[in-house]
Amino acid sequence: MKIITISREFGSGGRELGKHLADVLGYDYYDKEIITAIATNTGMDENYIERNLEHDRWQNVPLTFHQSVTSISLDSTHTELLLERKRVIEEIAKTGKNCIIVGRNADVLLREYRPFNIFVCADLETKTRRCMERSSEDECLNSKELIRKINKIDKRRAQTRALITDSDWGDRSAYHLILNTTDWDLKELALALAEFTKRWFESNSK
Amino acid sequence: MKIITISREFGSGGRELGKHLADVLGYDYYDKEIITAIATNTGMDENYIERNLEHDRWQNVPLTFHQSVTSISLDSTHTELLLERKRVIEEIAKTGKNCIIVGRNADVLLREYRPFNIFVCADLETKTRRCMERSSEDECLNSKELIRKINKIDKRRAQTRALITDSDWGDRSAYHLILNTTDWDLKELALALAEFTKRWFESNSK
Repeated sequence: MKIITISREFGSGGRELGKHLADVLGYDYYDKEIITAIATNTGMDENYIERNLEHDRWQNVPLTFHQSVTSISLDSTHTELLLERKRVIEEIAKTGKNCIIVGRNADVLLREYRPFNIFVCADLETKTRRCMERSSEDECLNSKELIRKINKIDKRRAQTRALITDSDWGDRSAYHLILNTTDWDLKELALALAEFTKRWFESNSK
Repeated sequence: MKIITISREFGSGGRELGKHLADVLGYDYYDKEIITAIATNTGMDENYIERNLEHDRWQNVPLTFHQSVTSISLDSTHTELLLERKRVIEEIAKTGKNCIIVGRNADVLLREYRPFNIFVCADLETKTRRCMERSSEDECLNSKELIRKINKIDKRRAQTRALITDSDWGDRSAYHLILNTTDWDLKELALALAEFTKRWFESNSK
C-alpha cells in the first residue's frame, strides 16, 4: 500500500494538486471526506464538525508581566472530534488501498505506514491570487485581510501539529519533498510529481 | 538554455546528486571547476583560493555588554576572489549551455536566467554517516566533532548567502524544490529528479 500525505500553506494549491495527483495515479483521495466520515460516525453535523475543528482555541496565558505562553483550551467535544479524526485517518490506512490524504497531520499519525510526505508552499502573491480566484467566502476580503487570514490559518496549522510531534510544520527536515507551486501549472506539476513519487515507492520497496 | 542550481546542507549528498543528475540529463556540471577557473583567471593557487574563500571571516562584534552583531571582515584578496567567483559563474551562464551549478549562491547570482533552484537536505544521522564514509579529512573526527563541523559549515553558507540576498538559506520560499535525501539512493533520486526538472523546463518555456 502506498500513502502520500500533503501538508500545505493555505492558498498554495496543495488540495488541488492532491486531487490532480490522485487522478493521475488512480489513488483514493481524502480531504473533506474525512469530515464526512466523522459526521457519519458521531451523528454530528458536518458544518458543526468543521467549525469546531477549525475554531481557534489557542490563547495566550500570561505568566508574568512580560511573558506569556500559548496554550490550548480543549472542550470535551473538541477533544472527541480530534480523536475521531485520528481514528478515521487510521481506518483509511487500514483499508490497505493506495491513497492521498491532504492535511490533518496524516504524515505524523500514519508514520508507521511510511507514507511519502509532501509539503506544498507558494509565494504570498500567488497564494492571495489563488484565494481570490477560488473562494466565494474570500470575495469580500481585500488583499490585506486575506494575508492576515492566510497567516492566521497557517499559524493554527503549525500549532495543531505541535500538539502531536516535535518536528516543526513546514520545516524541511520533516518532509520528503517541499514543493513551491509559484511557477507551476498545478496539472503539469501533478504529472511531474506522479513520476517522482512512483520512483520513490519503487526505490523504497526494494 | 537550462540552468539547475543545487544548494545543500553539508553532507546531504547534494554534490553527488548534482553529478548524477548532470550525467542523466547530459548537462555540464560545475562545482570545483569554478575554483579551477578562478585559478586560471587570477594566477593564484587553487588550494589557496579554496582556503581563502572558505575561511571563516565572520566575527562577533560586541555592541554593548549583552549584545553583539555578527560582522564580516573582508580583506582585499577575499573580496577580489568573491568578485572573480561571481564573474566565473556569470561566464558559465553566458556560454548558453545547459548546466548544473552546485553551491556558491548561483541561484541568486543567475536569477535573471530563471534557473531551477533545488535545495538538498538530509537528517543529521545520514549526513554524519555520509561524511564519515566519504572524506579522508573527516576520518579522524568523531561523531560529535563531525556534527560541529556540519553545523559550522552550514552556518557559514547561510551567512555568505545573507551578504547578497534577503531570502534565507534553506528557506522553502527561496527554492523551487527542497529534497530530503534521507530515504533515497542518490542515483535513483537523480533519475526521478531528471524527469521532474524536464517537466518544469517544458512547463516554463511555454
